[in-house]
Amino acid sequence: MWRPVPALSADLYELTMAAAYWMNGIHAGASFELFVRNIGENRNYLIAAGIERALRYLEEFHFEPEEIEFLRQHPAFRQVDSGFFDYLAALRFTGDVRAMAEGTPFFADEPILRVTAPVIQAQLFETALLSMVGFETAVASKAARVVEAAQGHPVSEFGSRHAHGTEAALYAARAAYLAGCNGTSNSEAGLAFGIPVTGTMAHSYIMTYSDELESFIDFSRVIGERTTLLLDTYDTMRALESILVAGLHPSAVRLDSGDRLTLSKQVRARLDQAGLHDVKIVVTGELNEWRVDELLRAGAPIDSFGVGTEIATAKDDPALSCVYKLVHIDLGAGPRFRAKLSAEKHTWPSCKQVYRFRDAQGRLDHDVLASVSEEIPGGEPLLRHVVSGGHLIEPPPALEDLRARCSAMRAELPDHLLRLEPDHSYRVEVTGKLKAMLDHLREAQGVARVASTG
Amino acid sequence: MWRPVPALSADLYELTMAAAYWMNGIHAGASFELFVRNIGENRNYLIAAGIERALRYLEEFHFEPEEIEFLRQHPAFRQVDSGFFDYLAALRFTGDVRAMAEGTPFFADEPILRVTAPVIQAQLFETALLSMVGFETAVASKAARVVEAAQGHPVSEFGSRHAHGTEAALYAARAAYLAGCNGTSNSEAGLAFGIPVTGTMAHSYIMTYSDELESFIDFSRVIGERTTLLLDTYDTMRALESILVAGLHPSAVRLDSGDRLTLSKQVRARLDQAGLHDVKIVVTGELNEWRVDELLRAGAPIDSFGVGTEIATAKDDPALSCVYKLVHIDLGAGPRFRAKLSAEKHTWPSCKQVYRFRDAQGRLDHDVLASVSEEIPGGEPLLRHVVSGGHLIEPPPALEDLRARCSAMRAELPDHLLRLEPDHSYRVEVTGKLKAMLDHLREAQGVARVASTG
Repeated sequence: MWRPVPALSADLYELTMAAAYWMNGIHAGASFELFVRNIGENRNYLIAAGIERALRYLEEFHFEPEEIEFLRQHPAFRQVDSGFFDYLAALRFTGDVRAMAEGTPFFADEPILRVTAPVIQAQLFETALLSMVGFETAVASKAARVVEAAQGHPVSEFGSRHAHGTEAALYAARAAYLAGCNGTSNSEAGLAFGIPVTGTMAHSYIMTYSDELESFIDFSRVIGERTTLLLDTYDTMRALESILVAGLHPSAVRLDSGDRLTLSKQVRARLDQAGLHDVKIVVTGELNEWRVDELLRAGAPIDSFGVGTEIATAKDDPALSCVYKLVHIDLGAGPRFRAKLSAEKHTWPSCKQVYRFRDAQGRLDHDVLASVSEEIPGGEPLLRHVVSGGHLIEPPPALEDLRARCSAMRAELPDHLLRLEPDHSYRVEVTGKLKAMLDHLREAQGVARVASTG
Repeated sequence: MWRPVPALSADLYELTMAAAYWMNGIHAGASFELFVRNIGENRNYLIAAGIERALRYLEEFHFEPEEIEFLRQHPAFRQVDSGFFDYLAALRFTGDVRAMAEGTPFFADEPILRVTAPVIQAQLFETALLSMVGFETAVASKAARVVEAAQGHPVSEFGSRHAHGTEAALYAARAAYLAGCNGTSNSEAGLAFGIPVTGTMAHSYIMTYSDELESFIDFSRVIGERTTLLLDTYDTMRALESILVAGLHPSAVRLDSGDRLTLSKQVRARLDQAGLHDVKIVVTGELNEWRVDELLRAGAPIDSFGVGTEIATAKDDPALSCVYKLVHIDLGAGPRFRAKLSAEKHTWPSCKQVYRFRDAQGRLDHDVLASVSEEIPGGEPLLRHVVSGGHLIEPPPALEDLRARCSAMRAELPDHLLRLEPDHSYRVEVTGKLKAMLDHLREAQGVARVASTG
């Protein structure tokens, strides 16, 4: 029930470069690493997500005949031999992947996924891998903040309607659940991933009726003990009063607009006065981590939150600075590690590993970014070998297990990173060897060495 | 080649409400309108998009057996009769749709699409319609600004890698093209929609080689006269010099980083000095409408732009305040028009039409939002009847035609809206009849009348 990804879901230049490699006989093994340049002003850490989707895409990668035909007809391939298209038609992923476990907190410059394969293959996947991993990571990272702000109160992801299309809605639900949300409103996510799917009722149901109470009675009769009644269509306290007078006993009531601090207090008091201590209060409507935090700090007696658009679009940072860069190629006489050298946005050369170091209390202390050719004792290596020769080494972990591990790993983050206020103080050390490799490449290419990275 | 949309791509409450309507025997005809509450600080107008996708979704809507089975097993439906699931299994869209033509500029509160159908159906589509129409509209509206800023220089949409998954990348490419971009990097969009697909080369191709010039030569030999060479991997001017010395004659060179005002001037001067007046300069890299405007105003000799993330994610406003609201239902003894009445976010009742009025020069002057029961002489009605009894009345217009009409309609916008600076002065008049209907509903529901809308 994962939605399929066409092979043509790629920037054209991945394919013209493939043609150029093929025509020039370049089939060397290459490694590309996917990482985030900058975690963004509004995040103190990121949560790796979208990895399972990426691995399934790689494992299932193939061109359909009409995709090949489209490329044959495209003018960019006018001078390309017909054999190239036969090559594409037979192409499957045969490489290896190292990746962080989904749900792992990570930081800028740390590779979360490395593809090692013949260069044509590894390059081809760039566009799709970036969009899949970047998007789910953006959503998971936002959702984790909302979950932290909710201090243990359940958060449901309700943002499908404002997601970037229905596929984005599905994977947003998955990423949000992975990062600690308790469920989603997205029904497809229930079928596809077994995520708990929850829902209440809309204003439109109530507006269908001339009489609000009649709509509550009709709805409750069908949905039964799981009913959540929506109070704010006309007048919140009046709606509550009519529910009490009619003797309805919903499982919860929902507040979707207005001053939800005051209203939640009034509703809680009235429910308690009526002896309905077990009726919960659900709050929704343009929430994010800051508003959730504000409500709870002010003592709002809210039991759970539905958070939509802000999670499903990662609204305050909808596009991570995710990149996928060549770091090594088995070709040429000079050094085989590679990096982008420009002063403005250089990358670290060679295949790398991230080592995580914890303090005596088990909280994260710092990470070390190292070349795989180095020994870094004492740290936990975060990238693991997950795909070999084009196939998953083990079945992917269950989403429930990933979610539980993500929760445990979030609990290891230092308190200053878990706060909502910006804090970019987490230390990621780059080894001297990586710095030396970068300098070596710069010298080889005659590019000026930049003091700040020297 | 449109990607399919599962029926379960819906918030669960659309389905629990369907069950409640069905169990209570409510099959009345209803009308829902899709509109944007607020066009946002960073937009002066919006461009309607995603309509064709929405209509195809409606026409093809059906539940798969495993979707029905999922719902049967879900605890929210425990008290729902088995007949409801048989009803869902046979459900197809049988209603009517009125919609604006894709590419039409529109404003807050103006319905761009109305669904009229039995209430269960019309309600069910809410989540998917909002995400499809809202997303493409967000992208088209952003792209139109970039196209305006580019003053006739071609703009390609290059944002697939940072789109919210690969489906979002595909429809972002379509929306951007509709709104005036000249092409996309997304190959699937070429196959699916016939959009011109363009591309250059990546830094990684160059980095594969030990020698930059060798990579240029190899690439040019394969791609031929359409080659665009990327200059900024190591040193922009040095790369250009090597190209000239080697006698290469690419169709264009690309600048992806650094001070692109200065670099474009230096590159243009050097190309002209070498007699290569026909070699164009393409600029990419973290561009948006403001940076494009700034570069061109400063006299940068740039021929075309590649704009990625900012268009494909509508980054500065990634989620429009799109809603889908019940406006009419054939039920009950009182008035049959409906509206949300809360002071904070009320809606306008009844099925509506948008009438557009132009000045003597043919530029947009103002719009009138009216009930369909009113006669508004002299204005152009924007909503047209496009689906009848569940089927498209005519085949959808060709994307090329929509794009040409969008361009013509953008040219009719007043200059003050076409500028990048915020301007929300366009007048949308609400008729006295709509205001009276809202007051009537408020009185019927005993909700306080709000002066500002009286």
